[in-house]
Amino acid sequence: MEAFTPESQWQSLLDVEAALAAAEADAGVIPAWCVADIRAAARADQFDLAALTSESTLAGNIVIPLVKQLREAVRARRADAAQYVHYGATSQDILDTALVLELRAASSLIDDALARAMAGTALHARAHATTAMAGRTWLQQASPTTFGLKAAGWLDSLGRGRQRLQAAMTGALVVQLGGASGTLASLGDAGSAVMEAFARHLELGVPDMPWQSQRDRIVHVAAALGIACGVTGKIGRDLVLLAQTEVGEVRERGMPGEGTSTAMPHKQNPVRAVTAIAGAIRAPQLVATMLAAMPQEHERAAGGWQAEWATMPELVRVTHESCDATAQALSQIEVDVARMRDNLQARGGLALSEALVSALSGQVSRPDAAAIVERLCRAAAAEQRTLHEVAIHDANVRQALSPPQIESALTPEHYLGSAAAFIDRVLRKWGG
Amino acid sequence: MEAFTPESQWQSLLDVEAALAAAEADAGVIPAWCVADIRAAARADQFDLAALTSESTLAGNIVIPLVKQLREAVRARRADAAQYVHYGATSQDILDTALVLELRAASSLIDDALARAMAGTALHARAHATTAMAGRTWLQQASPTTFGLKAAGWLDSLGRGRQRLQAAMTGALVVQLGGASGTLASLGDAGSAVMEAFARHLELGVPDMPWQSQRDRIVHVAAALGIACGVTGKIGRDLVLLAQTEVGEVRERGMPGEGTSTAMPHKQNPVRAVTAIAGAIRAPQLVATMLAAMPQEHERAAGGWQAEWATMPELVRVTHESCDATAQALSQIEVDVARMRDNLQARGGLALSEALVSALSGQVSRPDAAAIVERLCRAAAAEQRTLHEVAIHDANVRQALSPPQIESALTPEHYLGSAAAFIDRVLRKWGG
Amino acid sequence: MEAFTPESQWQSLLDVEAALAAAEADAGVIPAWCVADIRAAARADQFDLAALTSESTLAGNIVIPLVKQLREAVRARRADAAQYVHYGATSQDILDTALVLELRAASSLIDDALARAMAGTALHARAHATTAMAGRTWLQQASPTTFGLKAAGWLDSLGRGRQRLQAAMTGALVVQLGGASGTLASLGDAGSAVMEAFARHLELGVPDMPWQSQRDRIVHVAAALGIACGVTGKIGRDLVLLAQTEVGEVRERGMPGEGTSTAMPHKQNPVRAVTAIAGAIRAPQLVATMLAAMPQEHERAAGGWQAEWATMPELVRVTHESCDATAQALSQIEVDVARMRDNLQARGGLALSEALVSALSGQVSRPDAAAIVERLCRAAAAEQRTLHEVAIHDANVRQALSPPQIESALTPEHYLGSAAAFIDRVLRKWGG
Amino acid sequence: MEAFTPESQWQSLLDVEAALAAAEADAGVIPAWCVADIRAAARADQFDLAALTSESTLAGNIVIPLVKQLREAVRARRADAAQYVHYGATSQDILDTALVLELRAASSLIDDALARAMAGTALHARAHATTAMAGRTWLQQASPTTFGLKAAGWLDSLGRGRQRLQAAMTGALVVQLGGASGTLASLGDAGSAVMEAFARHLELGVPDMPWQSQRDRIVHVAAALGIACGVTGKIGRDLVLLAQTEVGEVRERGMPGEGTSTAMPHKQNPVRAVTAIAGAIRAPQLVATMLAAMPQEHERAAGGWQAEWATMPELVRVTHESCDATAQALSQIEVDVARMRDNLQARGGLALSEALVSALSGQVSRPDAAAIVERLCRAAAAEQRTLHEVAIHDANVRQALSPPQIESALTPEHYLGSAAAFIDRVLRKWGG
Repeated sequence: MEAFTPESQWQSLLDVEAALAAAEADAGVIPAWCVADIRAAARADQFDLAALTSESTLAGNIVIPLVKQLREAVRARRADAAQYVHYGATSQDILDTALVLELRAASSLIDDALARAMAGTALHARAHATTAMAGRTWLQQASPTTFGLKAAGWLDSLGRGRQRLQAAMTGALVVQLGGASGTLASLGDAGSAVMEAFARHLELGVPDMPWQSQRDRIVHVAAALGIACGVTGKIGRDLVLLAQTEVGEVRERGMPGEGTSTAMPHKQNPVRAVTAIAGAIRAPQLVATMLAAMPQEHERAAGGWQAEWATMPELVRVTHESCDATAQALSQIEVDVARMRDNLQARGGLALSEALVSALSGQVSRPDAAAIVERLCRAAAAEQRTLHEVAIHDANVRQALSPPQIESALTPEHYLGSAAAFIDRVLRKWGG
Repeated sequence: MEAFTPESQWQSLLDVEAALAAAEADAGVIPAWCVADIRAAARADQFDLAALTSESTLAGNIVIPLVKQLREAVRARRADAAQYVHYGATSQDILDTALVLELRAASSLIDDALARAMAGTALHARAHATTAMAGRTWLQQASPTTFGLKAAGWLDSLGRGRQRLQAAMTGALVVQLGGASGTLASLGDAGSAVMEAFARHLELGVPDMPWQSQRDRIVHVAAALGIACGVTGKIGRDLVLLAQTEVGEVRERGMPGEGTSTAMPHKQNPVRAVTAIAGAIRAPQLVATMLAAMPQEHERAAGGWQAEWATMPELVRVTHESCDATAQALSQIEVDVARMRDNLQARGGLALSEALVSALSGQVSRPDAAAIVERLCRAAAAEQRTLHEVAIHDANVRQALSPPQIESALTPEHYLGSAAAFIDRVLRKWGG
Repeated sequence: MEAFTPESQWQSLLDVEAALAAAEADAGVIPAWCVADIRAAARADQFDLAALTSESTLAGNIVIPLVKQLREAVRARRADAAQYVHYGATSQDILDTALVLELRAASSLIDDALARAMAGTALHARAHATTAMAGRTWLQQASPTTFGLKAAGWLDSLGRGRQRLQAAMTGALVVQLGGASGTLASLGDAGSAVMEAFARHLELGVPDMPWQSQRDRIVHVAAALGIACGVTGKIGRDLVLLAQTEVGEVRERGMPGEGTSTAMPHKQNPVRAVTAIAGAIRAPQLVATMLAAMPQEHERAAGGWQAEWATMPELVRVTHESCDATAQALSQIEVDVARMRDNLQARGGLALSEALVSALSGQVSRPDAAAIVERLCRAAAAEQRTLHEVAIHDANVRQALSPPQIESALTPEHYLGSAAAFIDRVLRKWGG
Repeated sequence: MEAFTPESQWQSLLDVEAALAAAEADAGVIPAWCVADIRAAARADQFDLAALTSESTLAGNIVIPLVKQLREAVRARRADAAQYVHYGATSQDILDTALVLELRAASSLIDDALARAMAGTALHARAHATTAMAGRTWLQQASPTTFGLKAAGWLDSLGRGRQRLQAAMTGALVVQLGGASGTLASLGDAGSAVMEAFARHLELGVPDMPWQSQRDRIVHVAAALGIACGVTGKIGRDLVLLAQTEVGEVRERGMPGEGTSTAMPHKQNPVRAVTAIAGAIRAPQLVATMLAAMPQEHERAAGGWQAEWATMPELVRVTHESCDATAQALSQIEVDVARMRDNLQARGGLALSEALVSALSGQVSRPDAAAIVERLCRAAAAEQRTLHEVAIHDANVRQALSPPQIESALTPEHYLGSAAAFIDRVLRKWGG
């Protein structure tokens, strides 16, 4: 991902310093002539990044050594411009605004991955609207559903997940500028003017007040990322379960060398779906750390803010990886329609038990119908026969239904209820 | 809280069963004459709740024994109506829709608590807009701020927290109705009609498709609750720190018997603020559990949904308790303005160091000014003198500033920057 | 569970108050004649528990109103004895020591559940030591294993989990007694003597110093509980996966009414295994809350300790429920040996691919053997033939192996390596 | 930290491959002549680590491309040796055993940091055994304690934390070797012999059976790390609170450039203590991820194991950083004994209220004494007088105590109870 790399993070910090100088010049706080030199010096590829990293441990944050190097770089260009670097700001102003820049870049990439995942799953929803397969509840076969409806469920949650992330980002795209204690006193009367120019240069919004120890906007983004990982984790888990050797209804088509095993030549591991599952195991706790860090003391935290530094980037990376892997998986799976139908017949076709109850309900009360079918199911299981065989020879059933009616009742495609209508609504909402 | 109590939860389940019957009668799926008896029987105070709880362990969920008891209660009123109880539904339809009803009730109470907290903090923001106090960063005194600005920060985040919860709830206020596998096949062609009537009876929205294993709407609410706890936890932490014996800037006014100690008669513990902190320690992990439970298998989970059952109610309770405690604390704190000013003079008034840098910056470069003041601060600390005393005798300072200018520079009220403007914007946005 | 119920918790608090009085009488701090009345009054069934609960919110903790009621109860027996109730102690002394008593009771029940789970799984390990079944990695069939080895893995981790919990409990079985600030100053010179007698009366250990804000012993217990939930969650997940309709290798035998569905008469949901999975989803975050609460301020926390109050009991309950459900599941599952063997033949028997590589490795290099078998596997999958059929007609294979050798190589029971030896070692370590 | 760096992790993987070859040669599974070439080729500095990282995404884990490169490197030395690389093993064998090697290295460094932290805090415990300071509960001043007792509490928990980590590591220092499905079938009859030789070469223990999907040993280490972070987080929080400008009882002595601010020249931020707090905010969730990942499917996980890969190293790094920062902080803090005594007199010396109750208890009942002193405390607070002034003029008090007795009762050093005895015990246990 081209965001939250070491290089991009350093560059964002420098972009913020450059925008600050430009904004202060616009507001007349510092002379306009110094801006070009500051901007020219603010190039991460000219810095000794290893030295910055090691000095930051001592200083307590990474901006302190960065400002020092930037001042030197500006001084080398024009000595009297150096004093205007980082003028009136505090480290957190730079770090938080750079975080927002990185989030903007990263969320765009995640949005793209979610869009690709949606496109991939919409194709399945449309193509397999009437492809019957076993519903599965508590990991036991249940009444039939369609692969299209399963895909529509994925699509619907992906769509909401994408909207949610966009909404959270919209709220978070504001600069942070507060100076030492959040009053911008160091800028005298020019605080508001500088803040507005600063935001304009970075194409970000202006908050009503600085937010250095009010982290809810960032944490809201974290939550949206975490939910996206939950959504893709559910897709990944469904795919892995469907890809089981004994189920075999979908398969991740591997590229050469992908998903192989060092021990077993036949293996084709569903590595992309597993990546999404692993992301869904990790993301909840990364979100929790962001939440746990929220009670930040007074005007700048003693622990909570510092806990965010490694956590938020990792959450973004995990989310991007999960969404991207899901998009890839969804675009490359092979769907085995025959296997889906075969599996519905496995175990005597008991998955259609409710369908038979429904058919009988016209003639006897629903609880009575359920009792009859429960008895048939037990018999079928005990005698290793199919539900169809047992039903067709049962007096109670035969009294209510003719053989063709029984046949029809036990046909999965006849018992799909509103599946097609649901798929249609979901596709209309999210396009595809 | 009048939601998520054992009684309210049982009643919500029964309300959902009653609404389902009414909806199915509207759609012609079951006869209209049975609805009144089902509704009349659906009263939690008539049920043996202890028996339901113990039977639910065996059955795997609480709806199974509930439906059994409800059928019996209906049968007692009219025998042939019993068969129409829970017609065509599955347990999760009832549990999830009842969860939404409870969330609606609870979120209204939380919204009210947040509104009260906002009103209380808005008063402080307005009343103390110019009350200078030490800013504090890394728990060290920093440049001054005002108590009004601190309160404005609380207000701003409370306002966003409230909006965020409202938005999340808006998305979550939809019925769940899917039947065995989410196709509503048990309702034949009437699935959509029943779902719409069901929603109408409960005054909830209609989702595009059932969402029994797509939990993102609920988890979004969970996240909004968790963020609200983070917001109130930050307020609680600030209050507890300000209430420390050595700081003494605010105090929770206790009612008799409140916040006392069994050992020490002088104690007045900030119990409400601590309640908010404790909530902010617990909520992140409850949110994480909701996120971790998201990858739910196929059409109904084998673990994840079940993990939600105790978690979501507890998260709601913790959030309500935190928000309510915060509202109470904010409405009852005593603010000690004199102490705020005294504390700014403590430790030689070094908190004004940046103010002196700013004053000097007109005459020398800002880095030079910072170097001068850093020297003065070290001298003041070493000699136990005030920054003012050291500054007024320093040749460099005297060259740049007259004694009245030094005096003015070190007056906290002169170094508050945009604090008033920020407060004004926040109050305009959130009223109060 | 007969621990951490509301009643047992109130009684433990009262037991601690009674033991404190007895210990103080032993040390001569209070008169011996008051002890019998305090002990007689300290019976939870005589208290108005609802009133205690509601007053505790105001006071900040539940001991404050309890001591008040206890004093009144003692006064009713003998007026001048009331003053010796809770003498020199602070609320946290009572709460923490009562927590230890409840943990002792609960951990004994959890230990018993783990022992039952071990006994149940040891039977499977022994009985199925040579029952071949598909190994499964990344949820794809892999080289065969035995059901006995799978059970041995469960047993081994259950055994370690049980030892770990016992060890953590051994460290935690100490009284807490520190008075207001942890110095026991309220007891004058008698602090150590009282602490020792207090411990003796409760059959607990004596810590080197009070630990009211050093929570590591309790958190160590929490971690051991969490790991036990992870161990049982793994067993639960394996069982649910094996019980899938399409796999069908084990089945939870339900009692009547157990694991049924309100919609589908054929369902037999694995409710006990799912309980264990749900516990493993919840416990990690409950442990995390206990960890997150550890940085407790100075001599008594402002948030962290309070966050423990509901968390630790819930973690204990979840663990007991998970361990008990696992023990029940393991004692009641039906193992379908025929199905295990059938599944190994499914999908062309590719699960034996590595076995064929091993057989070929005597003749060609292992990487070459792997390349040959990889080719055969691709052919078998493409042509829907078995690995055996493809192998027996392959020139490379035939050059190296005779038909009986191929047959033997592809017999699962011939490719179980050290499984029996591993099982043997595990059974010897943990008995059974 | 010289462990869990990218380079050290690659080298550990290669060390494991080399040891495997040596072990297999010892057991006669592969020829002895190939070992030297494999060992010689297994040097991370000869590999293209960037290529390995990028290929690992495709393959699903990092061992697959590593083995490929290692085979090529061996082939370059001696063509027919290449086939014996990674013989009969699976990727997870290598990854897990290398993880154990890295944990061994890292835990030794963490143990060293904990030992340094213990030594530093033992000095304070001894030097300040009788240095009175305010106890603080709920962040309000309480009865006095000593700085030595506070330090003893830190020492005691550090000692237990260190022992706990050592014990967890002892249990985890075992090789993982199971082959494709955990049976070691690929090694024929030599499984046990190879496993023992493998362990001998790496100086690790032999487990009773492979543990590739039984993660409790590793998670136990994770829990011990998390608890260590909780212990150091508590120390960090105490230090930061004591270092507050208004408290000023300890101060982190900064090296030049350490803990400074880009805005305020007077700042000396407690960066080391804050590092420990930040670690204690992050670690709980990293532990929770390890716990959440435990229910790993069958013989190799589809998600849980993969979630560990980045989590465990990060937890180790966070723990090392926290322990090291704490050790540094404890060795470099300045303790301001005068300030400690001054703070006890602040707010009218009310912190001694319980001491006065104790003194009065000889004459009146303890509850009566508490009632008297509570009244005095309210009067003192209302009239801004000291508790001493109010007490000396109170008729009830004067009836019971003479002025010198009152004076003595309100002397902090006279009300330290068993503090010295507790410190003594803790120092005797942990040395120092």
